[in-house]
Amino acid sequence: MAAKKALEVYLDMLSQPCRAVHIFLNHNKIPHTVKTVALRKGENRTAEFTKLNPMQKVPVMVDNGFVLTESDAILKYMATNYHVPEHWYPRQPERRAKVDEYTAWHHNYIRPHAAKVFIMEVLVPHMTRQPVEQPKLQRALEQLGDTLDKLEGMFLKRQPFLCGDDITLADLLAVCEIMQPLGGGRDILKGRPKLESWRSRVKSALRGSFDEAHQILYQLQDKSTSKL
Amino acid sequence: MAAKKALEVYLDMLSQPCRAVHIFLNHNKIPHTVKTVALRKGENRTAEFTKLNPMQKVPVMVDNGFVLTESDAILKYMATNYHVPEHWYPRQPERRAKVDEYTAWHHNYIRPHAAKVFIMEVLVPHMTRQPVEQPKLQRALEQLGDTLDKLEGMFLKRQPFLCGDDITLADLLAVCEIMQPLGGGRDILKGRPKLESWRSRVKSALRGSFDEAHQILYQLQDKSTSKL
Repeated sequence: MAAKKALEVYLDMLSQPCRAVHIFLNHNKIPHTVKTVALRKGENRTAEFTKLNPMQKVPVMVDNGFVLTESDAILKYMATNYHVPEHWYPRQPERRAKVDEYTAWHHNYIRPHAAKVFIMEVLVPHMTRQPVEQPKLQRALEQLGDTLDKLEGMFLKRQPFLCGDDITLADLLAVCEIMQPLGGGRDILKGRPKLESWRSRVKSALRGSFDEAHQILYQLQDKSTSKL
Repeated sequence: MAAKKALEVYLDMLSQPCRAVHIFLNHNKIPHTVKTVALRKGENRTAEFTKLNPMQKVPVMVDNGFVLTESDAILKYMATNYHVPEHWYPRQPERRAKVDEYTAWHHNYIRPHAAKVFIMEVLVPHMTRQPVEQPKLQRALEQLGDTLDKLEGMFLKRQPFLCGDDITLADLLAVCEIMQPLGGGRDILKGRPKLESWRSRVKSALRGSFDEAHQILYQLQDKSTSKL
């Protein structure tokens, strides 16, 4: 019998969902190999990578020949197939359904709205060498504000974590998006004490794997802050 | 012991994900009560409904007091908790992961791009009494075309259904979105024989529940076609 090949993941650590996958693997001590796909160098558009993921996106997971895209699906697959504590993706139907509800909601709210602020404040000015378009940024910040209100009111409520008493894949996906605008020196949870406490709880629960995954973002933050 | 209250779903049959939930319930003969929330009358913005779903969106499911939003989560919950054939949401890890991959992808591709064409051709002209904005519509159709190419190349490939040999929640969510522009008289699969055959297979697999759920869309299509 051929030996099972170690789990491989294709990541760019500046991508929010890639960091979620990275944290999950390291925190849960799942043996794996990281293959870096540098989006800024267009490594996601090579023929080889396009064959792996026609969407030319990261993350991608390859588990013993089985190729899977979409962070949401990758995390659920790993939580189900590797020995990890059940709290990540609970088996109890109602609790699991709440995680599925969040991950579906996430695609249309937290992910696009937090990403937009980072794109406007960091990526576009870097690529175009033009200053930030303030009116557009203000609109994006308002949209993000509404989304954070919903995150707090609909999901967090009076719970310690987004889907209950313990950390789940929902918290992991959410926190990685919420960190992203920090690359431009902006803490989008400032003035939101309930969400700030939630983020602290998530960070504590993830211990070293959180900061390790966010190194590249912290470096970007230092650069942005020194420019101000 | 109090009797278990029947499953309740809040739906508007002009909404694509609501039709997916409706078909799933009827096809699988799951006892349920439908509560109609007419979006065109703003019934989703009442205080009562907002309490149920702060996002003011349909579908919403209430199962014996447990409230769940997001069609994706609702369908997975029902497939897991009610007696339905396993093919809908397979337990085998790789097969399940492929369904999760599709449902994650769906949020950013098939759903927004097919919906946009319907909104531009049917809803906006109806509300504004202005003709369709042709250049905008052309761009939306091009985006949708790219998305349909990906649906065929990445998911359907040479398989009978999107995630393998049998119908899953992925096919159900996809087909309901793909039908939507038909409300404006537009069949977006015309000239795409592989996807057309797939749609026929999905319709056959769903038998009467498919046409029953699409009655309102067929009526809209008749109106649109008679205007041409």
